[in-house]
Amino acid sequence: MKAEAFTSCKATQAMIEKTSREGVTTVFHRVREKKTCPFGSGGTCCRLCYMGPCRVKDDGQDAGVCGATAETIAARNFCRMVAAGAAAHSDHAREVALVLLAAARGEAPGFEIKDEEKLWAVAQDLGIDPVGKSKNQLAEEVALKALTEFGQQEGELSFVRRAPQKRQEVWRRLGIIPRGIDREIVEMLHRTHMGVDQEYVHLMLHGMRTALADGWGGSMIATELQDILFGTPVPIRAKVNLGVLKPDHVNIIVHGHEPLLPELILLAVRDEELLAQARAVGAKGINVAGICCTANEILMRKGVPVAGSVLQQELAIATGAVEAMVVDVQCIMQGLGQVARCYHTELFTTSSRARLPGVTHLEFDHHRGLEVAKEIVRRAIARFPQRRKVEIPVEEMDLIAGFSHETIKYILGGRFRASYRPLNDNIINGRIRGVAAVVGCSNPRVRFGDLHTTLVRELIANDVLVLVTGCAAINCAKEGLLVPEAAEMAGSGLREVCEAVGMPPVLHCGSCVDNSRLLIAATEIVKEGGLGEDISEVPLCGCAPEWMSEKAIAIGQYFVASGVTVGFGVAFPTTGSAKLSEFVFGGMKDYVNAHWFYEPDPVAMARTIIAHIDAKRKALGIDVAKERVLYDMDMRRKLEVV
Amino acid sequence: MKAEAFTSCKATQAMIEKTSREGVTTVFHRVREKKTCPFGSGGTCCRLCYMGPCRVKDDGQDAGVCGATAETIAARNFCRMVAAGAAAHSDHAREVALVLLAAARGEAPGFEIKDEEKLWAVAQDLGIDPVGKSKNQLAEEVALKALTEFGQQEGELSFVRRAPQKRQEVWRRLGIIPRGIDREIVEMLHRTHMGVDQEYVHLMLHGMRTALADGWGGSMIATELQDILFGTPVPIRAKVNLGVLKPDHVNIIVHGHEPLLPELILLAVRDEELLAQARAVGAKGINVAGICCTANEILMRKGVPVAGSVLQQELAIATGAVEAMVVDVQCIMQGLGQVARCYHTELFTTSSRARLPGVTHLEFDHHRGLEVAKEIVRRAIARFPQRRKVEIPVEEMDLIAGFSHETIKYILGGRFRASYRPLNDNIINGRIRGVAAVVGCSNPRVRFGDLHTTLVRELIANDVLVLVTGCAAINCAKEGLLVPEAAEMAGSGLREVCEAVGMPPVLHCGSCVDNSRLLIAATEIVKEGGLGEDISEVPLCGCAPEWMSEKAIAIGQYFVASGVTVGFGVAFPTTGSAKLSEFVFGGMKDYVNAHWFYEPDPVAMARTIIAHIDAKRKALGIDVAKERVLYDMDMRRKLEVV
Repeated sequence: MKAEAFTSCKATQAMIEKTSREGVTTVFHRVREKKTCPFGSGGTCCRLCYMGPCRVKDDGQDAGVCGATAETIAARNFCRMVAAGAAAHSDHAREVALVLLAAARGEAPGFEIKDEEKLWAVAQDLGIDPVGKSKNQLAEEVALKALTEFGQQEGELSFVRRAPQKRQEVWRRLGIIPRGIDREIVEMLHRTHMGVDQEYVHLMLHGMRTALADGWGGSMIATELQDILFGTPVPIRAKVNLGVLKPDHVNIIVHGHEPLLPELILLAVRDEELLAQARAVGAKGINVAGICCTANEILMRKGVPVAGSVLQQELAIATGAVEAMVVDVQCIMQGLGQVARCYHTELFTTSSRARLPGVTHLEFDHHRGLEVAKEIVRRAIARFPQRRKVEIPVEEMDLIAGFSHETIKYILGGRFRASYRPLNDNIINGRIRGVAAVVGCSNPRVRFGDLHTTLVRELIANDVLVLVTGCAAINCAKEGLLVPEAAEMAGSGLREVCEAVGMPPVLHCGSCVDNSRLLIAATEIVKEGGLGEDISEVPLCGCAPEWMSEKAIAIGQYFVASGVTVGFGVAFPTTGSAKLSEFVFGGMKDYVNAHWFYEPDPVAMARTIIAHIDAKRKALGIDVAKERVLYDMDMRRKLEVV
Repeated sequence: MKAEAFTSCKATQAMIEKTSREGVTTVFHRVREKKTCPFGSGGTCCRLCYMGPCRVKDDGQDAGVCGATAETIAARNFCRMVAAGAAAHSDHAREVALVLLAAARGEAPGFEIKDEEKLWAVAQDLGIDPVGKSKNQLAEEVALKALTEFGQQEGELSFVRRAPQKRQEVWRRLGIIPRGIDREIVEMLHRTHMGVDQEYVHLMLHGMRTALADGWGGSMIATELQDILFGTPVPIRAKVNLGVLKPDHVNIIVHGHEPLLPELILLAVRDEELLAQARAVGAKGINVAGICCTANEILMRKGVPVAGSVLQQELAIATGAVEAMVVDVQCIMQGLGQVARCYHTELFTTSSRARLPGVTHLEFDHHRGLEVAKEIVRRAIARFPQRRKVEIPVEEMDLIAGFSHETIKYILGGRFRASYRPLNDNIINGRIRGVAAVVGCSNPRVRFGDLHTTLVRELIANDVLVLVTGCAAINCAKEGLLVPEAAEMAGSGLREVCEAVGMPPVLHCGSCVDNSRLLIAATEIVKEGGLGEDISEVPLCGCAPEWMSEKAIAIGQYFVASGVTVGFGVAFPTTGSAKLSEFVFGGMKDYVNAHWFYEPDPVAMARTIIAHIDAKRKALGIDVAKERVLYDMDMRRKLEVV
């Protein structure tokens, strides 16, 4: 198998080749075997009842056995993706809320309130008066109120009030302000049941309500409460790619999404007794590295190195240098189990909600989380002597992470007058053309990583400030885009700003639930003034060129519903229906002043994003003439040589 | 098209032929055009992420791009069906709770508390002390407590405590007592997201928890609160099949699931002013008939005639005699819209959660529900003069409905000592061999209705008392199985009991949410004594030979989790995975003392049910020798001649 066909990441290529030589099957081997079904991919395969399943052609005549048309079927499928994505983020948030509650009550050893400032701010936004309350007392109230946001049956989610007034009015007019997180998800499931909601616009509107319950509900709660528990990120330097694994250390990889147990593992590996045990088996120390969003969480707050994105999970094990991999929920490939059995790695599932066949389950119970963490470290150490051939790629890269919206405010505005004013001013004066959020997964169906970096290079060359999260952030980091020196690749305006502030042109804003930080950042821009009264007026665009999960669809939908136009690559789940596609790619604009677009080519996607930003600038009357730079192959090659 | 191929119901045949002649497309025309995909049908098509979609062979080697195996994929799909079914029932229940709340507060004109006895009983089971409270005060408390059952984040659902002690212990041991209705559904969605739970037994256990949140949660709340609002059913005589439509009346059909607006329509059609309007356009009166579960609801409580099952919705319109069809949620075919446009029928969608393209939306708002009901009746009357050719099938049949579990207690035990003692005694002495619940949808992929009636005849001939709900009940009613005279078809023991009590051998227990009544009936049998200490020990079996919806899967799963073995026909969504099928068809027994079975042939299904009942009798030590009667073709033909 030609490893170069998958990505230009050398570390990945080396490990794909190693697994191929060793007869180990990974996601890259499997994807070659699987042809996608056009009905499934385009959204017109209906498996909602057993009068079917039905595969429906979009010819204006064909329909499922019940009479459901292509647009109904595709809209139902799309909305179920939103519901599942929202469920994933929100169930993660629920777990964090329960841990915060236990921590506040002193029932979760190892956890404590780290960020009191954030605690106060969140309390106030949840309608709780923080004055005169002890830290733990207030944290308990915040946790309890956060939990009611999930179960609430009527009313409005609290964080919705954080959005610009004009945006809230859009939602209120459409009747799509979420009443409770779980309620909207459950109603979405009900509506997509056979024989319920069969009008695609009506379905998609509730799809927006459900998505908003994620963005301004579940995801935002997860981010905020994690900041309270573990600290709000500030800029921090770290390393990324498989080269962060250490040949002479016990390597433990934490992978998944919830930073709860990983935070305790970071505590445990500083335990002198465990360090002594590690030395006793011949290791120089214990090295923890992250994969996927767990990586982003502990990178943002602790500078823990990132071993790789979602597509490198199996490859990390294939280095032969990983003693233990600890997983919780989401984006854990079932293939991991088989790969781990081919090496000396012990794989641990740790969430009550997720198991893998044939894998050690050591449940993270927050009442005794530190014990569990220590047990895992102990078992990892015990595996060290079982190492066979170790082959760690040399590739590693520096990056700066930690750009919470508070940080952006601070680095731009300074410590004493933290503000988005300088950002707004630079957008208004044209140094910064606009802002693009590049987020989402990595997908082996495309040249993974390369889509992110091609797109981002194009954007910064055209003075677009880029905010990244999730695996998109990891891929950009691996290519050196997340260091201040990357400003050299930026257009003159953006470069000037970056150099003045000392920041990279691509800001790592965190994990996938941290896309909620971007909603807040966009809102702050609006509130700062001069760039319109609603998020939809800001020269801003979102995209996920390598998306693959239902969570990505939920995120995209809440961005669009919040007024941010969003582009997706790979394939798009509405393309099987012309009507639904017309709606998501255009008609939605009439409802929320934003829409989706589908563009698999990263250069074309950059072009669309820039055109979108320019149109917003024009509408705001700040469209100074600005040439578009084509970041061409020559420039690219030059960089690659460097 | 050969209409006889679909069913032996003559009314249905006539209308299929009429629509064929008139070039109108119905579910029967569409089903002929659609081939099912074997991966979708067997459960091994995975559309959960866009590294796929993947279709996976069950060969022990093949896997999805992420490595998910056939059993993981099929289990995830199965569990999502459970979640969607539970969501549908529960969202229905939520609406009822909100209406009860409004009624208690005097904010829902036309609604009032009809059954105070039930209100007291439910209050107590919800942990509310009813003493000294006014009717409305108590109803308000009950409604509010019911609403918390949806949003509750921790603890246990209240109605779980209604189950036999031994069953509660089974659940507690497995950790599957639902904490809150919405929470379990949302967690199920999360667990089935890409890369979360990938161990099929672990998935199926949460599938049970989610299903229990339906059976002992959402569905039970719907049933109980509806009884409080509209009265607990008592035996009532009525008519069924398309022949109930009246050629000289304005015909209004109510179709769907929530009996809220339909109850108000029944009020509205007694309005003298509207009746005068009807007479003014030449009608002799206004006739309301039901379809699907709405039919079952208002049949059970008001004796309103039933026009047909889910598969007759389009055909009812095709009679040309229906002025208005009012739909809300679930099992509404999108094809209805097109059929209605071919005749003079005005179709109304009325739920905030469901629309159909090109159909009048007149939203049921419970604050002004009676006005909406009157508006619908007024518009139906206005359509009467637009009638063209009317062709109403002559077929109609008598039936007795109204067998709530309270009624069963009463008819068996008498007014003054209502008790399940006589039923238990008759099971113990062998007059009644056991009890079978025959429930669920109708499916055009099989000879619809005939599977139900063939199975039920076989069962009663073998002294099995049959409880029916949903479209299964409607199909059995159409064939005359729900009248006391049907006892002639029963075995000598069952016949003797039926004749002594004056009841049919097949008892109509209500709509699909009323399957919760069967859980209570089974529990009462256990509590009465002599037939074991758990539901799983009772000579009892459930089945849905013509199922089609996700709700049916949710119902089946909560029956099995409650200890009732359940058989399904048509096709089964686990058959694409041998491992998962082994689990659902056998392995589940080790967890909950019950399992699923798949049997598309109704006679074979009857045989399996009888064998299951006999095995339970043997285990209880009450297995008196009893010959199995084969209800053969001769006997069947004899009956058809009659």
